[in-house]
Amino acid sequence: MIAVDWGTSGFRAWRLGAGGRMLDSREAPRGILFVKDGRFAETLRAEIGAWLAAGERRVVMSGMIGSRQGWVEAPYLPCPAGLADLAMSLVRVPFGDADVRLVPGLTCADAAGVPEVMRGEETQVASMLGDGASTICLPGSHSKWVQAVGGRIMGFSTYFAGEMFAALRGATILGRMMTDGPTEFASFDLGVARSGEAGHLLHQLFGVRTLGLMGRLADTDSASYLSGLLIGHEVRAAMPADAEVDLIGAEALCTMYARAIASCGGRVGALNAGSAQRGLTMIGERVRWD
Amino acid sequence: MIAVDWGTSGFRAWRLGAGGRMLDSREAPRGILFVKDGRFAETLRAEIGAWLAAGERRVVMSGMIGSRQGWVEAPYLPCPAGLADLAMSLVRVPFGDADVRLVPGLTCADAAGVPEVMRGEETQVASMLGDGASTICLPGSHSKWVQAVGGRIMGFSTYFAGEMFAALRGATILGRMMTDGPTEFASFDLGVARSGEAGHLLHQLFGVRTLGLMGRLADTDSASYLSGLLIGHEVRAAMPADAEVDLIGAEALCTMYARAIASCGGRVGALNAGSAQRGLTMIGERVRWD
Repeated sequence: MIAVDWGTSGFRAWRLGAGGRMLDSREAPRGILFVKDGRFAETLRAEIGAWLAAGERRVVMSGMIGSRQGWVEAPYLPCPAGLADLAMSLVRVPFGDADVRLVPGLTCADAAGVPEVMRGEETQVASMLGDGASTICLPGSHSKWVQAVGGRIMGFSTYFAGEMFAALRGATILGRMMTDGPTEFASFDLGVARSGEAGHLLHQLFGVRTLGLMGRLADTDSASYLSGLLIGHEVRAAMPADAEVDLIGAEALCTMYARAIASCGGRVGALNAGSAQRGLTMIGERVRWD
Repeated sequence: MIAVDWGTSGFRAWRLGAGGRMLDSREAPRGILFVKDGRFAETLRAEIGAWLAAGERRVVMSGMIGSRQGWVEAPYLPCPAGLADLAMSLVRVPFGDADVRLVPGLTCADAAGVPEVMRGEETQVASMLGDGASTICLPGSHSKWVQAVGGRIMGFSTYFAGEMFAALRGATILGRMMTDGPTEFASFDLGVARSGEAGHLLHQLFGVRTLGLMGRLADTDSASYLSGLLIGHEVRAAMPADAEVDLIGAEALCTMYARAIASCGGRVGALNAGSAQRGLTMIGERVRWD
């Protein structure tokens, strides 16, 4: 079987043998944003053609390739949903002799009935669902906080902190003071602490400027402070009381989230126990192939 | 006397006669951002030279011209401060024969000790201070909410909603769906209502995308909804319970704020009773000129 994680900016594929053993892998900067004129079939053939020629026929794909901007739109599956539900809901993509299928994204609604969506994260999360209840956080541009019970994703909530950070840094007066560099954890922690003080985020953001103006926040520390402020707001709003949170994501980002979770009274459980490769493998094992 | 409101992007000046009567006025796109190489003296002479030649000697200026990026830095005066305090704290600017003075900005601190600053708004507000207690809101990129008692500004709080809106619209995925056009007030009201529902702003922002994705928010309405969401958050956080709020600002923006204030249980009092011209006049009348 071939597993493909095809997102907005990147493409990753694995050739899997018996028991999900990885035989080979590929990675390329060929996310759907970089595929011109809908040439998804050509792109896929260029990446995994050799494996198909060697006899592979089954391909499972997840990520933004199944979105409206992707190859074929795979409609969102409503929560609750687990591995079996995902495996039963794959969407076929015409592709020569191969049997290519897309994992659908998930949808749910928040307390006010506003829709939530994820695409790609469900596959990572599905790979680590246990029997009990768990809270899983996937930090990113649009962070996801997932509630799972008994092997199914019951619901989830999205936070805009990552893309907000980039926009505030790149397109506002707050970013003009910021220098590049590694995360300054002392300043990050000050930002997290600030998020717990009285006052709305929209007010506290202006403080990033005045603290700089008054010489109380160095230009080298300002980005880390802003990052802590935003992640702190997200964690305080999204994390259930006294929670243990499993984290899936890039190492540097998970380090920051783990720090904020601990500062806000939570505990970090598993770190990166879930992965797209493992989720695709587990979904593929449950598919009734032709 | 000559009154000058010299901000980041614009320059306005008034020649005033007895009793503050306006004799003449000028306006130019010569804010401090557009003045090259610190040529503030040349710029001022180009704008008001004819009035000086006609015998004027006294000039009062307010706005970002007194900031670190301006001509001469006028240190922030701490709150509480009223007209008399401002008039006693003007900073002189060397400028030939004329007696040119800068109105200082104001500073205070929020409950957590984080500094607040304003520069320019104090002059607008000072022109409308009564004996009682009042709440004054000046919408803008960095909105100010001012508490005044007995003719003095007791303190104020800044909200980053305006610049946040511009950054979200210009530099995130939320803006990609938005079309230009006049404010759609029904969508604006939905955004204000959304700001009162459970859930953090960082979560509700992602809803702007999903409502669009699901066909529940048209591209033509999306910017108005986002505007209502942000202003709604600001008003709910900044407005004292059961308050009457005086508004100073551009008409379109004041219309939106008035609508949000009413939706959130407040009342709008005076509209644009304060102005830079009037504030400069009242401060100038209290100065002990040489």
